[in-house]
Amino acid sequence: MDNIEHYMNEVGQRARQASRAMAKADSAAKNLALSLIAAAIRRDADILRAANQQDLDAARANGLTEAMLDRLTLSDKAIATMAEGLEQIVSLSDPIGEISNMKYRPTGIQVGQMRVPLGVIGIIYEARPNVTVDAAGLCIKSGNATILRGGSEAINCNQALARLVKQGLAEAGLPEDAVQVVETTDRAAVGALITMTEYVDVIVPRGGKGLIERLIKEAKVPMIKHLDGICHVYIDDKADSRKALDVAFNAKCHRYGTCNTMETLLVARAVAPQILPPLAELYRVKEVELRCDEESHAILADYPQLAVATEEDWSTEYLAPILAVKVVADVDEAIEHINRYSSQHTDSIITEDYTRAMRFLREVDSASVMVNASTRFADGFEYGLGAEIGISNDKLHARGPVGLEGLTSLKYVVLGQGQVRQ
Amino acid sequence: MDNIEHYMNEVGQRARQASRAMAKADSAAKNLALSLIAAAIRRDADILRAANQQDLDAARANGLTEAMLDRLTLSDKAIATMAEGLEQIVSLSDPIGEISNMKYRPTGIQVGQMRVPLGVIGIIYEARPNVTVDAAGLCIKSGNATILRGGSEAINCNQALARLVKQGLAEAGLPEDAVQVVETTDRAAVGALITMTEYVDVIVPRGGKGLIERLIKEAKVPMIKHLDGICHVYIDDKADSRKALDVAFNAKCHRYGTCNTMETLLVARAVAPQILPPLAELYRVKEVELRCDEESHAILADYPQLAVATEEDWSTEYLAPILAVKVVADVDEAIEHINRYSSQHTDSIITEDYTRAMRFLREVDSASVMVNASTRFADGFEYGLGAEIGISNDKLHARGPVGLEGLTSLKYVVLGQGQVRQ
Repeated sequence: MDNIEHYMNEVGQRARQASRAMAKADSAAKNLALSLIAAAIRRDADILRAANQQDLDAARANGLTEAMLDRLTLSDKAIATMAEGLEQIVSLSDPIGEISNMKYRPTGIQVGQMRVPLGVIGIIYEARPNVTVDAAGLCIKSGNATILRGGSEAINCNQALARLVKQGLAEAGLPEDAVQVVETTDRAAVGALITMTEYVDVIVPRGGKGLIERLIKEAKVPMIKHLDGICHVYIDDKADSRKALDVAFNAKCHRYGTCNTMETLLVARAVAPQILPPLAELYRVKEVELRCDEESHAILADYPQLAVATEEDWSTEYLAPILAVKVVADVDEAIEHINRYSSQHTDSIITEDYTRAMRFLREVDSASVMVNASTRFADGFEYGLGAEIGISNDKLHARGPVGLEGLTSLKYVVLGQGQVRQ
Repeated sequence: MDNIEHYMNEVGQRARQASRAMAKADSAAKNLALSLIAAAIRRDADILRAANQQDLDAARANGLTEAMLDRLTLSDKAIATMAEGLEQIVSLSDPIGEISNMKYRPTGIQVGQMRVPLGVIGIIYEARPNVTVDAAGLCIKSGNATILRGGSEAINCNQALARLVKQGLAEAGLPEDAVQVVETTDRAAVGALITMTEYVDVIVPRGGKGLIERLIKEAKVPMIKHLDGICHVYIDDKADSRKALDVAFNAKCHRYGTCNTMETLLVARAVAPQILPPLAELYRVKEVELRCDEESHAILADYPQLAVATEEDWSTEYLAPILAVKVVADVDEAIEHINRYSSQHTDSIITEDYTRAMRFLREVDSASVMVNASTRFADGFEYGLGAEIGISNDKLHARGPVGLEGLTSLKYVVLGQGQVRQ
């Protein structure tokens, strides 16, 4: 491709054009497209696997790690899950066009708000073909056009999926350009995508911290982004110890690589000697390394994988069987620590004390605040959003798990009978 | 001031610190502060006028235009209006802490959303002292800390107002740093404010297009902004002609310099020969210049201030007694024209046809879409928001007039009884 900027400009223009038709598409057409794409994915599983095999061969030749190859691989199960995911999106109610809060004003006009698509959504992600279909599905249902830029290693598979998506859109009478997969692996395409403010309304990056940090620096288009997840559990001295053990174990050990995994455990001084040893027994089985402040280090002196926490540990997202542990005086110190070091993703208090629970909910400034529940619940499906395009650490627009509604906006509608301003 | 960056950094740190206390402040304390400030403004009217006089003397010496001097002047009426504005904000219900949509999930956890402040809001505005008080009031009520950077010509008056605001906050037991007026007129302070992502959560610029364009280029902090208002009225061939004349006259002539003023009039071909001549009679009295496309030009050939519209006219915000006029085939062409040239601010259709009205509402992609109402209604007070920090042309977060709710965000709250993820 000779001129990336020119190409991306055309992609952007087509997306903007398609977004107009998508915004007024009715629910039946959007659901039909999603169902047709799901059926096509099942029907053409062999074609998709063949395209994926090309990607895998190239990736292996380029020396990708096993972990990356694993994420790139389109298994039978992954293909079935993609199709099911689309059918789940069909079952969600259409958010577009809903009118709320319609009220008469003293002037006689009625004022309310209508939910509308954002327009054109750019999605930048790593070499995971399933994101192509998930993201396309959510954007179609929410009446948006989308420009997808997946990791270059998945280019063949993504192109094969894009063909099925375009067929489904066309058969349902919707514009093919409503979903475009960028056809070049040139990195300049990303640079163009995140700066085309005239054609792209929002960027949703899905990927590691390195990608997001680069995008933050260069983007001119607003982003719904998630940088990192430094999540806390605070065990209060009024905690039920059974709940404390269950939640603190689950929040760390259910999965290590997820953004809603606990990375720092805070324990109230009054109960630290009682709660830390039995909790450490649970972590020991999973070979979790504990990086402790002085006080917790003294309590857990016999723990096999023990280290002294440094200042850096309080702001590290391990994504691994490692946990920072700190003893705090009370809920005040816990809230202060969290508001200082948390990535404002998800933080949970374990307590039976009503006032402290309410204070934690109100005063911890994170996208999800919890009482007596595992941070692992911070997830679009668990919250009942039906599907999730990502998790937002931002405060503007959408905070926490972002579902269909996060891909929409509210405009004002005014109904009059010829009223004029006095 | 030697080191602007260092100074702004300190302002930012203090604001972030104050935002924690403001986020948990109860409604009574916030309302008390607002009432105390209102009383102090009335009490110290002489002091405020004296400070304003200093600004006016300096401005006159610097050769400011009469229009700018006018906006800078703090009249008795303006002082009373500022105090009343604060009292109106007292009467609005507190948006913070409201919990909505609390629902049980199959896992047994309850998930809902709590309305919380955005944190620290930077407001950049021109030499209008009343904005200092309006903005401070809205930020206090919504539990935010704010950094105010007003036009340098108003520095003395703004500092005098800032002292009253800080006294009110302190007397109500709230942190003085919740409202800080930048103490330097150095332009570098703006550059710092719009890039301090660690201390500032959102920038609300209130000013002319030049200011906003500069900020867009340089800002790293997200903005709630309003660039321009190219608003349309479309007179359909099924319009009631009385309503058409009333609205098309009011939308243009009620005030010329406001962003919700109509700048382009579209008229359906079938009724153009009937509706344009009587409408032009109304405009003639106000000496409105009409810039017409070929068809409307032929119809209005006798109009005294007639010009031929150029392509540029369709995307010009005149803010003056000038109106672009175009004949279109039907509602389809009207929607197409609007979605192409509108600044997505406010657009209105005049029609008695139900289907066309519904289509216009759904398909015009603007912050406010209206049927049979003057575009001049696009305003926080007219919409019932009680107060307005500005009007947003953006699609993310807040669209249209932005009231207290636009200065807040929703976080997720999860209530459990020890649940863990399976």
